[in-house]
Amino acid sequence: MLTLSARRCILSQLTSPLKSTRGHCDTAPPDVLDRVRTLLQLCADRYYISPGESNSELFRRGWSCSYGPLGVELKRNLLQQWWHSVTGSRAWVFGVNTLSSSPVRAAGGARVVQSEPFQQILDQSELSREQLIQKLNRLLLSSPSVRTSLLQGALEQFVPSLEMVNKKLPFGLAESGPCFQPSDGCSAEVTQTSLVWFCSPRSSSQWLDHWARHRLKWWRKFALSPSDFSSAEVPENELEEKTSRGVKILYKFPWGLESLETLWCRGDAELLQVHKGIRSKLQTRDGRKSVPHVVSVSGNMDRGAMAYLSNSLQELRREDGRKRLQQRKVLKLHPVLAPVKVALDVGKGATVEMRQICEGLLQEFLEAKISAWPGYLEAVPTSLELLNAKYDEMGVLFTVVIGEKTLESGLLQVRSRDTTIRETMHISEIRNFLSKYVSAADKL
Amino acid sequence: MLTLSARRCILSQLTSPLKSTRGHCDTAPPDVLDRVRTLLQLCADRYYISPGESNSELFRRGWSCSYGPLGVELKRNLLQQWWHSVTGSRAWVFGVNTLSSSPVRAAGGARVVQSEPFQQILDQSELSREQLIQKLNRLLLSSPSVRTSLLQGALEQFVPSLEMVNKKLPFGLAESGPCFQPSDGCSAEVTQTSLVWFCSPRSSSQWLDHWARHRLKWWRKFALSPSDFSSAEVPENELEEKTSRGVKILYKFPWGLESLETLWCRGDAELLQVHKGIRSKLQTRDGRKSVPHVVSVSGNMDRGAMAYLSNSLQELRREDGRKRLQQRKVLKLHPVLAPVKVALDVGKGATVEMRQICEGLLQEFLEAKISAWPGYLEAVPTSLELLNAKYDEMGVLFTVVIGEKTLESGLLQVRSRDTTIRETMHISEIRNFLSKYVSAADKL
Repeated sequence: MLTLSARRCILSQLTSPLKSTRGHCDTAPPDVLDRVRTLLQLCADRYYISPGESNSELFRRGWSCSYGPLGVELKRNLLQQWWHSVTGSRAWVFGVNTLSSSPVRAAGGARVVQSEPFQQILDQSELSREQLIQKLNRLLLSSPSVRTSLLQGALEQFVPSLEMVNKKLPFGLAESGPCFQPSDGCSAEVTQTSLVWFCSPRSSSQWLDHWARHRLKWWRKFALSPSDFSSAEVPENELEEKTSRGVKILYKFPWGLESLETLWCRGDAELLQVHKGIRSKLQTRDGRKSVPHVVSVSGNMDRGAMAYLSNSLQELRREDGRKRLQQRKVLKLHPVLAPVKVALDVGKGATVEMRQICEGLLQEFLEAKISAWPGYLEAVPTSLELLNAKYDEMGVLFTVVIGEKTLESGLLQVRSRDTTIRETMHISEIRNFLSKYVSAADKL
Repeated sequence: MLTLSARRCILSQLTSPLKSTRGHCDTAPPDVLDRVRTLLQLCADRYYISPGESNSELFRRGWSCSYGPLGVELKRNLLQQWWHSVTGSRAWVFGVNTLSSSPVRAAGGARVVQSEPFQQILDQSELSREQLIQKLNRLLLSSPSVRTSLLQGALEQFVPSLEMVNKKLPFGLAESGPCFQPSDGCSAEVTQTSLVWFCSPRSSSQWLDHWARHRLKWWRKFALSPSDFSSAEVPENELEEKTSRGVKILYKFPWGLESLETLWCRGDAELLQVHKGIRSKLQTRDGRKSVPHVVSVSGNMDRGAMAYLSNSLQELRREDGRKRLQQRKVLKLHPVLAPVKVALDVGKGATVEMRQICEGLLQEFLEAKISAWPGYLEAVPTSLELLNAKYDEMGVLFTVVIGEKTLESGLLQVRSRDTTIRETMHISEIRNFLSKYVSAADKL
C-alpha cells in the first residue's frame, strides 16, 4: 500500500489528469498514475462518462458524475443486481422510497433554498440588520434539508413496516437513491444503496457478520480479480458515534484502499430518537420489552461502478506478425454487468440487404432485452482489427459481423471478447446463444 | 368534467381526506370524494404509500412521496417499462445520467445551500448590513442549483453524443430521475422521465406526432380502461416560450384531467444557448448548415403510478349467500406492473412441513425473479375470504395456498385475482405457469 503522503500527491496530480506532471512527486510511482489516466481516458472515450476534466475528477473521487450511455447501463445493471441480491436474499426485506429532501430533519446540513424569496428579503431596504438576520434564519430553517444518507428515511418507516410484518423481527428496509455528502464546504452527490436491518439486541452482532459476508461475496461475484475486494473490521477508536461495531468492504484502487460499503451495529438510540422515545410504538411480539437494534449497510454505487471498471481493465501487450509491439486494452466486465452484450456490424461492401438483416437482428435482441450496439449504422468503414479494439475497450461481450455469406447461407461470425475466438453460427441461433450465455454467467 | 371551482373545492377538502367535510361544497359530487378517499386509504393500508395525511396529499398531487414496498415495486416496474419502451424502440436512443444539482446553471431557482457557512456569515457581527448582503448573495450564487427538469442535462450531452452517432440524425437521449418543481413557494420533488430527441428542422413536427402516438399507446397498454388516457394538442395561446407545438398525454382522474407526459417542439434556441451559440459544434453530417431541432418528451412517473392505481381500482358489489351486501375492492393492475405476482400462504392447521414447502417455493420464485409475498410468515390465522380480500386490494395476481393435500400429492390451490377461480396445480408447474403468464401479458 502507498503511504498517505504518496496517495495525497497522486490525488493532487490527478485533479488535472491530462497534464503531464509525472516525476514531480518522488513517492508516486509513475505506473500508478499511468493506470489511472488510462482508465479515466478510456471511460471518457468509450461512453462510460461524459468527457471533461472536472467530470472525470468527480468520477474518480467516487461521486456521481455525468454518465454516458455505457456508464448508465453499467450503473443500472449494478443497482439491479444489488436490489435482487438484497430484497431476494431473505423473505422479509422490503423496498422503500423516501424523499431526498424533507422539512422535518434537524437543523444544519444542506438545504434547498428558493432564490426568489431569499432575494426578496435582501432587497427589503426598510429592514434593520437584526430583522434581516431573523428573516433569513427563518427562511433557512423552513427550507427542506437534503438527505446525506438513506438511514433516516428507513428509521422513519420502521413503525408502518412493523405492522406489515405483524410485529415480528428480523426484517429489513432497502432503498437506493441520490444523497448529498458534504465535502470541502460544498456538497457532492452520491448514489447510495442502503439496507437497514432491524433485529433483536442480542443478535445484532451476528447479523452484522452475516451481512458483511453476504456483501463481500456479492462484490466478489462480479470481479475479475476478486482478491482486490476485501473486508475489514473498523478499529474501536474509529467507530462512529452511537455505533458499537463496524465493518467496511474495501476495494484496492491503484492509489490505495477505498471503502465501497460500510456496515454498522447502531444499537437503538437513533430509532428511539426518530420516534421521540415512545418505546411502546417500537416493541415487537417476542414478549420482551426491548427496542429492536439496527444494523445498517450502506454502499456507494458510483464508486462501485468505478471499482468494477478499474478491476476489469486488462492491458495486454503482444507482438504482431511484423514483430511490432501491440497493446490491447480489454474491459473484461462481468457478463451480467457489461452494458453492451452484443455489437452488430457489417463486413466490407455492405449492401442494403445486409443492413436489413442487422435491423431484424437488432429488433430480436431488443425484444429479448439483450442490450445491443448498432455498429452497422456508423457510416465510416473501418478495419475489423480497429473495430474489435474499439469493442474490447467498450467491454462488449460479443461482436456479430454480417457478411456476404450471411445472405447466402444464414451463417455469421461471432467473436468473443474474452477468448478473441471467432465462431461461425447460424443466424437463428444467436439470440438463444446470447441469452443462455448471460443467464449462465448470472448463476455461477 | 367538473368545473374549476368544483375541482378546487374537492382539492381543498382532500387536504384532510379523513375528516368528513362532505356536503360543505355544493358542486363537488360526494361520490367523487368517496372514490378518491377510498383510493388513498387503500394505498396507505396496502403498503403502496406510507401512512399519514400529508404523505397522501403529496401522492395525490402527483409529487414524490414516501412509498411503501408495493409502491416502490410499482414505480420500479413502471420506470423499467418506460426505459425499455424508449431505449428499445429505436436504434439510436441512448441513456444518460446527469447530476441533479449543478454549479453552472443560471441564476434563480432553488439552490442547495450549506447551513454552516450561511450561519457563519450571519454570526459575523463586524459586518455591515451591505457587507452581509454581499456575502450572502455570493454564497447563494456559488451554491449548486437543483434541476427542475432533465432537459438541460440532455442538451449539455448533445455534443459528445453527436460524436458517438457519427454526426448522424435523428437520435435521442433518455433519462429518468428526481427533479424539483417550484410550487407555492416551496419545491416539490417529482420523478421525471425524459426523452430529448434531436432531428432535422423540417422533420420535428412529424417526430412530435410519432412520439405522441408512441407514448399514448404505451400508457394505454397497461390500462384497465384505456379510454381514460388521452392526448391533446396544446392550444396556440398556451404554448410555452420557445416552443412551436405541444401535445399532452392526459389522464382522467376522478377530479378531472391531469397531464402525465408533455411533448414539445422546442426548435434550436435552447440547444444554441447551452452551447453558447457555437453553431459549428452542433452541425451534423447531412451537409446542411442547420442546427438540429429538439423534441422533448417529459413525464411524471409519480403521477403515472397514481393514474394506474386509480385506473385499476374496481369496486364490486354483490350479495353473499346470506343475502348480505358485500363490497369487494380489487386493484386490477396490469400483470407487468403488479408489484406482487404471487402470494404464498398456508391453510388451516399449518405444520412445519407445510412451511418448509413455502420456503422452498419462495426461493424458487425469487430466483426466477418473480416477486412473491411470504404471507405464510404472518402468525395470525385468518379466513380464506379475508385473505383473498386483502390480496385483491394489494393487486396480487395469484394466491397459492399450501394445504395438507400438498404434502400427500404435491397439489396446491392457485387462485386468480382477475377470475377469482381456484385451480388445482402440481407444485412443479407453478413457477413456469407464473413466468409464462407474466411474459405473455407483456407481449400483448
